[in-house]
Amino acid sequence: MNFGTIYGVGLGPGDTDLMTLRAHRLLTGAQHVAYFRKAGRPGQARRIAQDLIPEGAAEIAMEYPVTTEIPLSDPRYNEILSAFYADCTAQLRALAESGQDVVVLCEGDPFFYGSFMHLHSRLKEVVQVVVVPAITGMSAAWTATDQPVTWGDDVLSTLMGTLPENELVRHMKAADAIVIMKIGRNIGKVRRALQSAGRYENAWLVEYASMPGQTVQKLSETGEKVTPYFSIVIVHGQGRRP
Amino acid sequence: MNFGTIYGVGLGPGDTDLMTLRAHRLLTGAQHVAYFRKAGRPGQARRIAQDLIPEGAAEIAMEYPVTTEIPLSDPRYNEILSAFYADCTAQLRALAESGQDVVVLCEGDPFFYGSFMHLHSRLKEVVQVVVVPAITGMSAAWTATDQPVTWGDDVLSTLMGTLPENELVRHMKAADAIVIMKIGRNIGKVRRALQSAGRYENAWLVEYASMPGQTVQKLSETGEKVTPYFSIVIVHGQGRRP
Repeated sequence: MNFGTIYGVGLGPGDTDLMTLRAHRLLTGAQHVAYFRKAGRPGQARRIAQDLIPEGAAEIAMEYPVTTEIPLSDPRYNEILSAFYADCTAQLRALAESGQDVVVLCEGDPFFYGSFMHLHSRLKEVVQVVVVPAITGMSAAWTATDQPVTWGDDVLSTLMGTLPENELVRHMKAADAIVIMKIGRNIGKVRRALQSAGRYENAWLVEYASMPGQTVQKLSETGEKVTPYFSIVIVHGQGRRP
Repeated sequence: MNFGTIYGVGLGPGDTDLMTLRAHRLLTGAQHVAYFRKAGRPGQARRIAQDLIPEGAAEIAMEYPVTTEIPLSDPRYNEILSAFYADCTAQLRALAESGQDVVVLCEGDPFFYGSFMHLHSRLKEVVQVVVVPAITGMSAAWTATDQPVTWGDDVLSTLMGTLPENELVRHMKAADAIVIMKIGRNIGKVRRALQSAGRYENAWLVEYASMPGQTVQKLSETGEKVTPYFSIVIVHGQGRRP
């Protein structure tokens, strides 16, 4: 019997019309569909794929362990997540070794941040793993602003809102164009960093890029509320434009 | 009579199976298809779309003026290109004003470097322009390396090989993960900059990402040859990985 293949399938930013032909074909033909989600939640990847998962496909919900009370710097944080990814790996590996293909749903692009890469690194030596790239959330975000993000020789830096404020400021000052992801509860820090770097007035906040409820606002015109975790801040480059 | 719409359609990195459902639908239903190319060349965007352009569709080839003898810093360079984009704009505008939709083929993602943005900025106040995002060439390149480009809080910097060497070095030192585009004849400078920044040994060169003839090599193991202009160098981040 031949082993099956694990497909890490990028779903793109959320609008299924922005899915690739390859992802669409793999998903609509899948017999086993796996995805990450928080316990008790439907899961964002599952929600995007909702109408495309074939009736009768077996679903494997991989539920993140609760780590909200543990700081990122605590070694227990890594240990708990590591054990979780090992469990998921064992489950997918067993399916592949029994000859089944598995489609793992990935928000955005599988190799650009995200969780699938933690399975990929554990699985790739033992079974065949194929990654299908996709449109990133940041691409949907800059498209939503209706302005190009980079021109000519612009330097684009992609930053996580989880970085320390001084590092955010340093990178924001050095770049021409800026994308900031993983915002959520870090929005206050991101605002202050943009102000310190002199980039605040040109920053845009995009919520739910390419999804129902998409909003695009100048960051300076939004209130102090916490934004969704997958909101994205864009500062456009101003490079050469004949 | 209603005006038509100009669609800036991202084709993605080159493999048509990585095109979005939306791009595929717009392209295969198009009656007017426009694209940039060098004079006397078939054009990379046209080549990607080759098998999907409907028979009988009118084609508008927008041929770049020859600027190879003029340095980027010479004001004539910008003047010549500016006049060229104005001509293209007039042609597309006339079609839209006569009620025709036009699909403009864009390599990669239309708002991420590229040429379509120069038409978008000129057209968007006068006719309806819709941009369809796509997978970037860099995403296909890091997927081709079979390694994630960014983990955890990694900072990703996207750099053009056309930048001065000292600027390349400075940005390469500051970033965790690096993408370098527009390489071609700048490959020697890019090599030296990576060496100065201590990133050379971990750099990969991807040629023809997602296309026939794709190659993935450690940059240090490639010869001194000039690479295609759309080759991409990737240095992967090494961030948190439970």
